[in-house]
Amino acid sequence: MKIKFLTLALLLAAVTVLAQQQDESMRMKPGMTEIWDPEVPIITPGTTPTDAPSDAIVLFDGVDIGREWTNADGGEPGWLVEDGCVTVKKGTGIIKTKRVFEDFQLHIEWRSPTEVVGESQGRGNSGVFLQGRYELQVLDNYNNRTYRNGQAGSLYKQHPPLVNACKGPGEWQVYDIIYTAPRFNDDGTFFTPPTVTVLHNGVLVQNNSKLRGPTEYIGIPEYTVKKHGADGIQLQDHGNPVSFRNIWIREL
Amino acid sequence: MKIKFLTLALLLAAVTVLAQQQDESMRMKPGMTEIWDPEVPIITPGTTPTDAPSDAIVLFDGVDIGREWTNADGGEPGWLVEDGCVTVKKGTGIIKTKRVFEDFQLHIEWRSPTEVVGESQGRGNSGVFLQGRYELQVLDNYNNRTYRNGQAGSLYKQHPPLVNACKGPGEWQVYDIIYTAPRFNDDGTFFTPPTVTVLHNGVLVQNNSKLRGPTEYIGIPEYTVKKHGADGIQLQDHGNPVSFRNIWIREL
Amino acid sequence: MKIKFLTLALLLAAVTVLAQQQDESMRMKPGMTEIWDPEVPIITPGTTPTDAPSDAIVLFDGVDIGREWTNADGGEPGWLVEDGCVTVKKGTGIIKTKRVFEDFQLHIEWRSPTEVVGESQGRGNSGVFLQGRYELQVLDNYNNRTYRNGQAGSLYKQHPPLVNACKGPGEWQVYDIIYTAPRFNDDGTFFTPPTVTVLHNGVLVQNNSKLRGPTEYIGIPEYTVKKHGADGIQLQDHGNPVSFRNIWIREL
Amino acid sequence: MKIKFLTLALLLAAVTVLAQQQDESMRMKPGMTEIWDPEVPIITPGTTPTDAPSDAIVLFDGVDIGREWTNADGGEPGWLVEDGCVTVKKGTGIIKTKRVFEDFQLHIEWRSPTEVVGESQGRGNSGVFLQGRYELQVLDNYNNRTYRNGQAGSLYKQHPPLVNACKGPGEWQVYDIIYTAPRFNDDGTFFTPPTVTVLHNGVLVQNNSKLRGPTEYIGIPEYTVKKHGADGIQLQDHGNPVSFRNIWIREL
Repeated sequence: MKIKFLTLALLLAAVTVLAQQQDESMRMKPGMTEIWDPEVPIITPGTTPTDAPSDAIVLFDGVDIGREWTNADGGEPGWLVEDGCVTVKKGTGIIKTKRVFEDFQLHIEWRSPTEVVGESQGRGNSGVFLQGRYELQVLDNYNNRTYRNGQAGSLYKQHPPLVNACKGPGEWQVYDIIYTAPRFNDDGTFFTPPTVTVLHNGVLVQNNSKLRGPTEYIGIPEYTVKKHGADGIQLQDHGNPVSFRNIWIREL
Repeated sequence: MKIKFLTLALLLAAVTVLAQQQDESMRMKPGMTEIWDPEVPIITPGTTPTDAPSDAIVLFDGVDIGREWTNADGGEPGWLVEDGCVTVKKGTGIIKTKRVFEDFQLHIEWRSPTEVVGESQGRGNSGVFLQGRYELQVLDNYNNRTYRNGQAGSLYKQHPPLVNACKGPGEWQVYDIIYTAPRFNDDGTFFTPPTVTVLHNGVLVQNNSKLRGPTEYIGIPEYTVKKHGADGIQLQDHGNPVSFRNIWIREL
Repeated sequence: MKIKFLTLALLLAAVTVLAQQQDESMRMKPGMTEIWDPEVPIITPGTTPTDAPSDAIVLFDGVDIGREWTNADGGEPGWLVEDGCVTVKKGTGIIKTKRVFEDFQLHIEWRSPTEVVGESQGRGNSGVFLQGRYELQVLDNYNNRTYRNGQAGSLYKQHPPLVNACKGPGEWQVYDIIYTAPRFNDDGTFFTPPTVTVLHNGVLVQNNSKLRGPTEYIGIPEYTVKKHGADGIQLQDHGNPVSFRNIWIREL
Repeated sequence: MKIKFLTLALLLAAVTVLAQQQDESMRMKPGMTEIWDPEVPIITPGTTPTDAPSDAIVLFDGVDIGREWTNADGGEPGWLVEDGCVTVKKGTGIIKTKRVFEDFQLHIEWRSPTEVVGESQGRGNSGVFLQGRYELQVLDNYNNRTYRNGQAGSLYKQHPPLVNACKGPGEWQVYDIIYTAPRFNDDGTFFTPPTVTVLHNGVLVQNNSKLRGPTEYIGIPEYTVKKHGADGIQLQDHGNPVSFRNIWIREL
């Protein structure tokens, strides 16, 4: 009798548990929203956020500009390398990376000349051309007014910076750039436009800004959109001795 | 006669210029795409990109946590302030900013305990809750595997980080966060979702990621989306003595 | 003995089921992704897709133009109502809805004059202005070339139609328009731009096109973006006797 | 003297015109924002918006289902063609287009059985699978409640329709679908998700809705996203004799 009673009790318990589970069967469990694979790639960050992490390509280490860069004709860059930085040499033209890129994170530091010469667009003017055609303006805008869509931190003639976060002439400044390349429709128009986020000296100046087309000094960018593939980073010779250093890039 | 000839020549020249201008009248000029007003606001960046710029609100300066933060009940935070940082005190619960925010840039530094205890989600676990409900995970993932959508740099259970850029236990780490608050439809669904970009130790780990809904430990985020307004930054007490310092925010 | 054996067998079965459920506890069930509430609102569609559904506001029923429309000054429209349609009366100016709208679906039928007069922009020209400032071009482009970003189905001077789906002069044509109003940043720029999808005679001619700014006959739309609220639908008097009928709108 | 005076006057006039033009040289002209080339392709729309335009591929003309469709194994479809429509034959499985598509506009008409059998998901159930994996639900939801994210016009288990625009059993209904295929990142995640706009009987029920992943009867769509290319349109055999007719598609 005892045994029978026990088995009955056990049966009852089992049935109760089953019923409860029925009730709870529609409740999700924490594990249902965990994703384990594949493991996220592990990299080693720089000592400070401005240092190149382990998965970056160092485009300029302060010493050798010819390893990763050429001039417009594919020859040796004519710019000056000195004191760990490279400086525009007027008249030698742009320099461009040998490698080509699509989506990337780019870190680049720049300095406008200590000696202030010129005004508006004439002072400390250079530029970082993303995929060789979309310009992030470099300009000495410390106490130097110019048109808002043409100042430092602007996507030239398309998006003014959110704020003017310039340091003074002769001080090193930092651009951290997140760039997503355009995707194209068959007819050559943008399926998605290039988008650019920029931190200038740690301060957000472009927030996922969508480019309307290639940078145009004259005219409307929408009208000159053309399909293109991966392309290099280009630095501008605008005639002013602007310097660059600590350039690294991570492909996304 | 000479004078007559001169006036005739001048007239001819004038007419020629007019005709040329007619031809060129459809060519745009550089000035047509310059925008001068209003002037872009000028701010002073920090000495390094991790230092607060002049337009930031310093949320924690290493000394006084009670000025900008409360505990869950609006009282004094129970966490420990020492050596220029604030550390989770197990069981005292979250801390939350008194101010509320919508779109912002947030800089925050964190450190998991030097003494390694636990594994997976149990090691150095905390979190930064954007608008009090969207969690950017804080976790010691240095040689510590967990589910990919729950590790440091993840938007918890929604977006794994692009890479694992963790430093080791006891080392200070940096999050630079660009956050755009959701906009809502009348029925409470997202018109645009919250978007988050995160640099972890200077390395991009979230690239304009779109949140699917509030962070859910159990269940599907899309199903619990609700209209809300500006809200505070919240730091999590997950029972581990994680530390924070140098917290500043810029409203966008 | 038999009974004992039976209870034992039942117990075993129960335990097996429990174990199986343990294994299956991490498998989601179909019901976990069903959402039942709130019920989706029920409406009655038109007999054909061009007929107004039950939740539409009929803006013009072929008889009374003054009920829902005014002229530019808020007075009675000067256009001609006849044969179930309303026709531009040259020189009386635009007509505009009394009601204002944000996001909507708009159905409107139009007809360019049977007698062909003029060419390019001079033939059967009118326009549907969304929120009073973003023009969907109405033009007789049947065997009539004009600039691609100014023809029927274009968002005037911003987006050419994907195809030219025009019917001939004197034939009724249909625009089905899905419009999402812009949302604005505090500084008056677009947070999200206006987007427009258009079916012209059932053929897609605008596919979620993003407007760059208000329609500008002269100049660059980006430069004149200004914050605005809900606004009326406006039909253009461009001097040609274009007719309209069967106009209905659904607020989204 | 008279002549001298005249030439002087002419000179003065010329100079004045030049000066004026100088002043006006920064004003844009209407022609600067006209784009003429290439000409927009000309097509002939259907007589009504539901008729196939000249550039559509007619996928089913009411007579021959085997020309453009196969069953799951690539063989002849087992469905019934009668009275100008094709009807699901229970147990013969899906039918699928031989052609594959990326971005498109799709017109399809469907009818649930006149005789009402079953309820919720059991009544008049079928589906249109975009690129073979993203389901637009077909269901008799006339006086038939089911879960909101599973009813007619829903993107199954992802987006409920904005309204329930169903006609009754036995009545022909229309879906006009605008579909943009996903673009992918290298790791197989969405660069841009599939987006779907749907008019149900002329009423907007999906407004550029972004899919979270493939349609899943069980589980979370985000977790099963996989890179894929162009793929066919698929119609579901859910065991109910749902009929289809007038199916045409335009590649975008």
